[in-house]
Amino acid sequence: MTQIQQVVLAERPRGAPRLDNFRLETVELPAPGAGEMLLRTIWMSLDPYMRGRMDAAKSYAPPVEVGAKMQGGGVAEVMVSNHADFAVGDIVMGPVGWASHAISDGFMLRKVDPAIAPVSTSLGVLGMPGQTAWVGLNDILAAKPGETIVVSAATGAVGSLVGQLAGLKGMRVIGVAGGAAKCTYAVDTLGYEICLDHHSDTLADDMAAAVPHGIDCYYENVGGKTLEAVLPLMNTFGRIAVCGMIAWYSGKGIDDAIRLPAAWRAILTKRLRVQGFIIFDHMDRLAPFLAEVAPMVSDGRIAYRETVADGLENAPAAFLKLLEGGNFGKQLVRVGPDA
Amino acid sequence: MTQIQQVVLAERPRGAPRLDNFRLETVELPAPGAGEMLLRTIWMSLDPYMRGRMDAAKSYAPPVEVGAKMQGGGVAEVMVSNHADFAVGDIVMGPVGWASHAISDGFMLRKVDPAIAPVSTSLGVLGMPGQTAWVGLNDILAAKPGETIVVSAATGAVGSLVGQLAGLKGMRVIGVAGGAAKCTYAVDTLGYEICLDHHSDTLADDMAAAVPHGIDCYYENVGGKTLEAVLPLMNTFGRIAVCGMIAWYSGKGIDDAIRLPAAWRAILTKRLRVQGFIIFDHMDRLAPFLAEVAPMVSDGRIAYRETVADGLENAPAAFLKLLEGGNFGKQLVRVGPDA
Repeated sequence: MTQIQQVVLAERPRGAPRLDNFRLETVELPAPGAGEMLLRTIWMSLDPYMRGRMDAAKSYAPPVEVGAKMQGGGVAEVMVSNHADFAVGDIVMGPVGWASHAISDGFMLRKVDPAIAPVSTSLGVLGMPGQTAWVGLNDILAAKPGETIVVSAATGAVGSLVGQLAGLKGMRVIGVAGGAAKCTYAVDTLGYEICLDHHSDTLADDMAAAVPHGIDCYYENVGGKTLEAVLPLMNTFGRIAVCGMIAWYSGKGIDDAIRLPAAWRAILTKRLRVQGFIIFDHMDRLAPFLAEVAPMVSDGRIAYRETVADGLENAPAAFLKLLEGGNFGKQLVRVGPDA
Repeated sequence: MTQIQQVVLAERPRGAPRLDNFRLETVELPAPGAGEMLLRTIWMSLDPYMRGRMDAAKSYAPPVEVGAKMQGGGVAEVMVSNHADFAVGDIVMGPVGWASHAISDGFMLRKVDPAIAPVSTSLGVLGMPGQTAWVGLNDILAAKPGETIVVSAATGAVGSLVGQLAGLKGMRVIGVAGGAAKCTYAVDTLGYEICLDHHSDTLADDMAAAVPHGIDCYYENVGGKTLEAVLPLMNTFGRIAVCGMIAWYSGKGIDDAIRLPAAWRAILTKRLRVQGFIIFDHMDRLAPFLAEVAPMVSDGRIAYRETVADGLENAPAAFLKLLEGGNFGKQLVRVGPDA
């Protein structure tokens, strides 16, 4: 038995999540059985989609039960291995949950090569957020050189890669982010041509001015006022990849949102294609994604940025801040020392 | 010069269109010039999409100007021809507008073979409504045998063919129509497994009961309460082909419609693909559509039904009734005698 720490869902949030929806526990972990491993978490990933799993309603993943460990991905070191494919000392990435240690039978686990880039990138630019960006841009949006794309949450873990890949592809790239610091970073470091602040009272006008030729592709991470500014500007045969709707996750703004007929009319008259997607359905695209993007990260063509919270006990506060847009780049939690 | 009759847009409707938005005029038509023809209209088609052209707002087609002839397709006889491809006496289908006669240079005009089926079918089951049904089902929805499809406006010119083709394809086919007579026709003649009345106060519950395995494909002609009943029942990877939204065309029900976040959440969590389309973008699919469907109409495997208004002067009233769902099958206007 190993004493470990974990964060559980204490109660389901009503509206915006609060710190007391979570509880830090010390529990005993049994020794790994046949075919199993004991993992020690080094890095833990915080992602907006985790919000959906806190509700009882069916989302794309089953809800976390009240009293159960919060789910999520992380980077870990293999401490004990009864698994033929993994050795003690291997660095792995996979579903460890919000916990200092985990037992794994190898399901959804893959080795991470520290020679390519810092191992934390396997949770961000070279992990699921990065793959989400790449699949959304290429497979869902079918984005083409010369087209105009708008990327919301433009400096987030996903958006920051969408914007850079779109720019490298020869698209006109407009970002939307929260605040001047993020917008400056979007233009200066990520190569956005223009970045609009979604806090602006004139967002719809700012957007119209930024896209004189309309919008061909919209990479949707947020919903809310950004979506409402984008919809009327979509071009005929435009595409919208619905990857998230963080502005609405906490229940805020829903009563103020536009009604469905306005969106339906845009979809019909402009022959839009609006497609929701979630990366778990596209795991077969991992190899081509890494083949294209890993070299770009290694040689610095792709920039990435991380926000690190220190210690598992600080994960809930960091998660709430992430939902409010308080992170800057990929949000990580440092759970244990490097291997 | 030929004296002809035509219906013009007298003024733009505010809300639901009314009879006095239209005006019947007698005007002089010049003789056809080089490469042109004089056409005599036999049948005229009335279609819900014409409502959109009455507004000044940009839709998928330019608006009809106030004072100008209402646009639309019809079947006509060639009376005078200066065009190498068409002879006097030919029966043709194309954009004649709401008028007893028209000058044409052959643009968008095609000959109709009376041997295949009554020539009026070239405006319905073997015309654009039929092609709209076929393209929506096959190209947009990518419908598969064994899947469940819901078809709104199930007995309309488009829906009635969608339902029959889906049934022949081996799908489970649920219709939504207005009133008991249409629902009986949908089940008894068109082969729908179930047809729900959208006037029912329990439409959402009726729909849930009708689709125990959820909905894979939704052929959207109406919007409104039908869409709101369908959305929560869509299956993962479901597809929605947005072909029309007649329930909202007259401005009714828009303030009562659900707000966008509910639809966006369904699109995201269920990874739906929602795609608007309009048949004018898919005219290259005419030949394969006719190759498949014309034999089915000839030999009676596909049923169709027409509602005929008699005389050009009655077109406006018939159009208003169409928008209210008062037609039953393809709405035609008999403008002149058969050739």
